[in-house]
Amino acid sequence: MRPPFDTVRWDNGAIRIIDQTLLPAELKFARLESVETVAQAIQTLAVRGAPAIGIAAAYGVALAAHQSSATNVLENVRRARERLMRTRPTAVNLFSALDRQARLFETVDPGDLAAALLREADNLLEEDLETGRRIGKAGLSVLPDRTPVRVLTHCNAGALATGGWGTALAPVYAARDRGIKIEVWADETRPLWQGRRLTAWELAQAGIDVRVLVDGAAASALLGKKVDLVIVGADRIAANGDTANKIGTLGVALAAQAAGIPFYVAAPSTTFDFKTADGSAIPVEERSESEVLDEARNGVRAWNPAFDVTPHHLITGWITEAGVLRPPFQELRPTGSGH
Amino acid sequence: MRPPFDTVRWDNGAIRIIDQTLLPAELKFARLESVETVAQAIQTLAVRGAPAIGIAAAYGVALAAHQSSATNVLENVRRARERLMRTRPTAVNLFSALDRQARLFETVDPGDLAAALLREADNLLEEDLETGRRIGKAGLSVLPDRTPVRVLTHCNAGALATGGWGTALAPVYAARDRGIKIEVWADETRPLWQGRRLTAWELAQAGIDVRVLVDGAAASALLGKKVDLVIVGADRIAANGDTANKIGTLGVALAAQAAGIPFYVAAPSTTFDFKTADGSAIPVEERSESEVLDEARNGVRAWNPAFDVTPHHLITGWITEAGVLRPPFQELRPTGSGH
Repeated sequence: MRPPFDTVRWDNGAIRIIDQTLLPAELKFARLESVETVAQAIQTLAVRGAPAIGIAAAYGVALAAHQSSATNVLENVRRARERLMRTRPTAVNLFSALDRQARLFETVDPGDLAAALLREADNLLEEDLETGRRIGKAGLSVLPDRTPVRVLTHCNAGALATGGWGTALAPVYAARDRGIKIEVWADETRPLWQGRRLTAWELAQAGIDVRVLVDGAAASALLGKKVDLVIVGADRIAANGDTANKIGTLGVALAAQAAGIPFYVAAPSTTFDFKTADGSAIPVEERSESEVLDEARNGVRAWNPAFDVTPHHLITGWITEAGVLRPPFQELRPTGSGH
Repeated sequence: MRPPFDTVRWDNGAIRIIDQTLLPAELKFARLESVETVAQAIQTLAVRGAPAIGIAAAYGVALAAHQSSATNVLENVRRARERLMRTRPTAVNLFSALDRQARLFETVDPGDLAAALLREADNLLEEDLETGRRIGKAGLSVLPDRTPVRVLTHCNAGALATGGWGTALAPVYAARDRGIKIEVWADETRPLWQGRRLTAWELAQAGIDVRVLVDGAAASALLGKKVDLVIVGADRIAANGDTANKIGTLGVALAAQAAGIPFYVAAPSTTFDFKTADGSAIPVEERSESEVLDEARNGVRAWNPAFDVTPHHLITGWITEAGVLRPPFQELRPTGSGH
């Protein structure tokens, strides 16, 4: 089954992305033809969402190799990796994708590196699509037996945030494909409107009922039992389950707990960072004040953290490609690091 | 001491308001010369905030009388009252101000009614200003002994929401006037940006440090202990203390509780509605979907409640002109209704 959208793809010596800064007004593909334009696409959120960032970065390194000769390829891919690492600090997928490519730097003959890096990026995309399908299937098990099922989500952890199936929205697409009637309540997600711009757009395109609410209304929707469960994505999950996700997620989790409504995080296993013990060690990106205030005004300042950290005790379960998990996530830990 | 702003004033046979739909781009006064324009100013939020709405409505009835002869004045003020009652459903101050004017319909000679109604509206304004001063003074007692004091607020319950001193911001102005260093963290307050547009503007005009954050960041600011206390206004307070206020307040209250940070409601005693037993009986206005979505898009819907109800157990205290109170609010109950 084809995914709803081709968010990031290799396209004849360049990277083709859906330019998400233009949605929902315009569905336009951008062709990224240099490492610098890939880096800028990540920084400006033209491509965003932890898994999609990882895929774009992996292709970015392949692009650098593709544009090099055997004599300078190693220098160029290293420089590409360093540039791409400096794009966004929070999502762990970015670093794991770049690390995966970097392993090839040492082991593959320079003359074969371009092909190997492209194959590895393709693998990453394929794995992401397969992961999305599996997260969707695993997520079906947490949906209540009612019609319609009403899911609240925050930000966009949909097809547009991944290779094409999504994480938080993967169970929504999976339900739809099985004929389960499902509707989504989408927090608009200030300051960059990922809910209103992206989640609403991709679900409407896919024919799924969607309703946008301001972020401040989520608590009221939850306490008023207007939804049955919450599913959000994640940018990084610490070893104890503390989860970094888009700013506003923490408030939704607190309200879900107060309402007695299940709160799930859906994410590929690559989002788990077992080297980070708990949420206090996750770096949170602070972005420009201009995202909150249109212009500097009369001494008015802004505080604009891009993420918050939801403590594990507020999370009902983590929906992954390996099933619905709980800490300490033995199923996912690399051998020998499960202590 | 003069209040920071003249939000609503009688001006030679008309009502002069600050047109809040134009802030912060432009400080412009609007002259309302008919009951219908007063009603529309309330509906479009050109004048907003529960106390300011009450004052504007009281002057609106006086305006109707002012434009009538002794033979049709009673019909005209009754019609004016009915029109103004249909403007907004949640704030109780609107209804109490109109009831107060209506009592004069029966007891004052038609020839004296215009003067009596104007005097009563003037009284309401004067009482509001005095109430603001007293709320400010009462609020000082809940400020912690640190520098600067950091207050988080939601929406605008400032000078612009009242006759001129504010409710939630009255303690901030009172602290400033006593030389206490104080800073305000202002939720931007979607969908109509009262925090970003109005609270930030009026505080900056008054020389008070203010920082705007998206509504979704409030939980993170609270759990991260970036603020010392929360003070919000109220549109209606039920007999048990359940408090209706701008959508988003409930989520702030839940986060404050989780963070162990005090959460206060500041409101004049006219905001208490002892005929409403608890929050479940407070009608919550649902406003147009177009406030959330710029345009109807592709079948995307919106849910846009203007208020939410914070249960009394999340509220540390109610700062009123009669002091900082707790349920059952014996200090405020009309004699005989305290059971």
